[in-house]
Amino acid sequence: MKIAVAQLNYLIGDFEGNVEKMRSYTETAKVQGADIVLFGELATCGYPPRDFLEFDDFIRRAKESIEVIKSFSHDIAIVVGSPSVNPVPEGKDLYNSVYFITDGEVQHIQHKALLPTYDIFDEYRYFEPATKFSCVEYKGKKIALTVCEDIWDVGNDNPLYTVCPLDILIKEAPDFILNVSASPFSYSHAEARIAIVKVNVAKYGIPMFYANHVGAQTELIFDGGSLVVSPNGVVHREMPYFMEAMEIFEVDAVLAGSKHSEQPKDDIVEIHDAIVCGIKDYFSKLGFTKAILGLSGGIDSAVTAVLAQRALGKENVRVILMPSQFSSDHSVNDARNLAENLGIQYDIIAIKDVYDAFMGKLGTHFDGLPFNVTEENIQARVRGTLLMSFSNKFGNILLNTSNKSEMAVGYGTLYGDLAGGISVLGDVYKTQVFALARYINKDGEVIPENSITKPPSAELRPDQKDSDSLPDYAVLDEILFEYIEKRKGPKEIVAMGHDEALVARILKMVNRNEFKRYQTAPVLRVSSKAFGMGRRLPIVGKYLS
Amino acid sequence: MKIAVAQLNYLIGDFEGNVEKMRSYTETAKVQGADIVLFGELATCGYPPRDFLEFDDFIRRAKESIEVIKSFSHDIAIVVGSPSVNPVPEGKDLYNSVYFITDGEVQHIQHKALLPTYDIFDEYRYFEPATKFSCVEYKGKKIALTVCEDIWDVGNDNPLYTVCPLDILIKEAPDFILNVSASPFSYSHAEARIAIVKVNVAKYGIPMFYANHVGAQTELIFDGGSLVVSPNGVVHREMPYFMEAMEIFEVDAVLAGSKHSEQPKDDIVEIHDAIVCGIKDYFSKLGFTKAILGLSGGIDSAVTAVLAQRALGKENVRVILMPSQFSSDHSVNDARNLAENLGIQYDIIAIKDVYDAFMGKLGTHFDGLPFNVTEENIQARVRGTLLMSFSNKFGNILLNTSNKSEMAVGYGTLYGDLAGGISVLGDVYKTQVFALARYINKDGEVIPENSITKPPSAELRPDQKDSDSLPDYAVLDEILFEYIEKRKGPKEIVAMGHDEALVARILKMVNRNEFKRYQTAPVLRVSSKAFGMGRRLPIVGKYLS
Repeated sequence: MKIAVAQLNYLIGDFEGNVEKMRSYTETAKVQGADIVLFGELATCGYPPRDFLEFDDFIRRAKESIEVIKSFSHDIAIVVGSPSVNPVPEGKDLYNSVYFITDGEVQHIQHKALLPTYDIFDEYRYFEPATKFSCVEYKGKKIALTVCEDIWDVGNDNPLYTVCPLDILIKEAPDFILNVSASPFSYSHAEARIAIVKVNVAKYGIPMFYANHVGAQTELIFDGGSLVVSPNGVVHREMPYFMEAMEIFEVDAVLAGSKHSEQPKDDIVEIHDAIVCGIKDYFSKLGFTKAILGLSGGIDSAVTAVLAQRALGKENVRVILMPSQFSSDHSVNDARNLAENLGIQYDIIAIKDVYDAFMGKLGTHFDGLPFNVTEENIQARVRGTLLMSFSNKFGNILLNTSNKSEMAVGYGTLYGDLAGGISVLGDVYKTQVFALARYINKDGEVIPENSITKPPSAELRPDQKDSDSLPDYAVLDEILFEYIEKRKGPKEIVAMGHDEALVARILKMVNRNEFKRYQTAPVLRVSSKAFGMGRRLPIVGKYLS
Repeated sequence: MKIAVAQLNYLIGDFEGNVEKMRSYTETAKVQGADIVLFGELATCGYPPRDFLEFDDFIRRAKESIEVIKSFSHDIAIVVGSPSVNPVPEGKDLYNSVYFITDGEVQHIQHKALLPTYDIFDEYRYFEPATKFSCVEYKGKKIALTVCEDIWDVGNDNPLYTVCPLDILIKEAPDFILNVSASPFSYSHAEARIAIVKVNVAKYGIPMFYANHVGAQTELIFDGGSLVVSPNGVVHREMPYFMEAMEIFEVDAVLAGSKHSEQPKDDIVEIHDAIVCGIKDYFSKLGFTKAILGLSGGIDSAVTAVLAQRALGKENVRVILMPSQFSSDHSVNDARNLAENLGIQYDIIAIKDVYDAFMGKLGTHFDGLPFNVTEENIQARVRGTLLMSFSNKFGNILLNTSNKSEMAVGYGTLYGDLAGGISVLGDVYKTQVFALARYINKDGEVIPENSITKPPSAELRPDQKDSDSLPDYAVLDEILFEYIEKRKGPKEIVAMGHDEALVARILKMVNRNEFKRYQTAPVLRVSSKAFGMGRRLPIVGKYLS
């Protein structure tokens, strides 16, 4: 028996497009002799469909998609995720289901039992958990069907759920496990995914074929890396990352367990590739091609520009250099050198005249009050408005260049440098931005060395340095990581050796600046805890603030 | 037996403040002879604590709060909501619990079973549902303890849950039901709340004492309106709305069922009072006193200014009139008249010079391209930047004045008129804004009549009217309501008698402008489906867009 595992790039709500894509891959799988083709979780409607699931019209279209899939299910079995309607009045109205379709009929539906409702996941918002489990038989094999999270509660000291679907399914003695997933990227997640599949295979003693999504949906980046694991626990195949692919596996060869294809991993390389994928899909799925951003001469905008150029092509990235009276000469030179290295269009617009026009209007109102963050913010907002004007006039999406460290402590101007359609580095700490820059320059200088080595500065007042108001980024990022990713409290972080007053100050900055993050662009998620949909905190509150 | 029902204004994460407030009300209840005092759901930590619940340190503080509450529980029983730790490894780590505390000890804990996970609620994100239910005995009475949603799945044709806690608790023949709630306001919700308590009382034949929260937590406004319902189904007491209160009830009098205190309701009055409460608490809980906003002479900013003045006092609201070359004379006059009627500080800053400074920089780049939305947006962003400069310099929070109809179709400029710390009217359709204006003027002209009667216009180009690009607001709002509040699809809305092409165009505008709503301020929620945390839609997608 041959199984085709297809990791595809779906588009949320594009039922026709998603089904047409699956039809095309199904035809190829048939030609290549596959008995079964495996697609992703909620592949008909894309993942995550979010509150579109509350629209009856949306569910009707998902049902129609299954009808279409039935029409091309002859001579092959199609395993595909799609929502289904809960027939009993009690409980949520939908299930998150995997369909087993062949010979023009749905032969079996298995609903998902473990509904991730944490971080970026909201599945219990929409779905009733399954309480019944059964295998499907096909061509003499018994097959356990699972949906994503259903395999994730195994081998855990503190399980999130009180049931384990495979503990029940295994009683029917299935020959292998199929899993349809929508498992988003974070730089540590591929390892976790491989480990959990191995734990399942070790526990149940049968092979697993695991199909993921690939491609980005706004902030979520699906990385592919679909898996086939042999019963001896060896990874028979780890499919490619960040690209659509379909591969065909002979079940007997998988059972033999003699092949091993696990790939080496590097966090920074993964983050680089994920962000390139994230930018590319954000633009293409919205029907845009061109980006614009402000280039300051600093490292954040430099790295953003490189990633954009790699995602969209040099002809589609335009940068504006907007020096003020506080900008140093080297900043403009560094920015210009980068633009020339990348071969992208750049323009220089000095902001002093516009800044002066604002101050001309505000001067009488601010009479006698000293220069402070107000005037700094005006500079940032003049830049934001100039960039948005290019965006509006020429149809470029503005890329936000703020990094995670800045966004955490509120070091940025709302409607100024925090503007943009998508935040490229908002889930990348400053120390990781440096590592990305080094990786980008590994084969020669792309980013001017000076942009990497000079002390970070917003250049919004004379001789300003980030270090005037923030600790060293190495220290700051460590504290932020423990608080944001690890949800450690102040006592625990201090116990790790950090200064108590500093920890209190940093945590207070993080919490008090929730209002800024509420209004900033969606952040391309590359860590296990990104700002945005996966981190939900009150703006008004008094905890650590 | 006497029961005190206390509806208090808690602050998220302010354990000390919340407990101190409960101590004070407990002392008063004791003096007044109460046997039991009933507080709200998760009253120790405030509601909704959101992802703070994922911090062990936060949970530790909630536990400490219970210890403190024990210390003042002599001579009275205190019924209070607080998180508790799930002792078994399987399932989520927390329960959402109600504690029954007296004589210095926790006598009983009942966990919540029905965990709302829809709209603005995310409870299954944090909590394991209860599976065990039992009553507590106190002073010869048997008492059924419930938490908020636990009473909401009764008398429903399509119940959201598969269990009903009171069906189990009633087997112990309790004398009455206590419910600790955190039930946020919408203009139809008080009626729904009264109805559901009556359905429970009718079903189980015993009285219910229901304590809500009061006060706003960012976008969520808790309205109070705590309830006591007699076994004959009569509302013994409907407590006041939008104010802290504690009242004491003699159980025998409630059993007698001879008192009736249900209050008449009016949607527009409720929305008015809710928004005033929302503004007031947003400022006071963040430690701010002063607001600023732009006054255009139009109805939205006029209504916003009135509500702000009523919430914060005339001395704390400052407005800026920022006419452009496209502003009509009457706009400035209308705005000035309103400011004078309200007795608030106003300044006039013409934006032409700053606009010209921008165009001076952009002119060569935009050479030969016609005036379009770009130049309109520059005007809006100049205003946004001027307002934010006052906000930064003087510590005023900028109020956003966009209404729900505009936010729905994307009729507004990101970083321009969509700027602000809180959106006052973002959940109020334009037709409702008119009704609010009429209500505000019911005893004499506060808002200049001309602001209400003139055709709505953004005045961003010569002779612009909203009706140039949008249908009449009466039609627009009907279509939006069916799509947003009712989650109707295009076919269903057309079947109600609306033009098919218009419906398609409106729905497309709503979906394509998700990116703008993602970056706008939190919206004070007054309807059953507000933009923000309760409405979660993808930015990238192809459904109806």
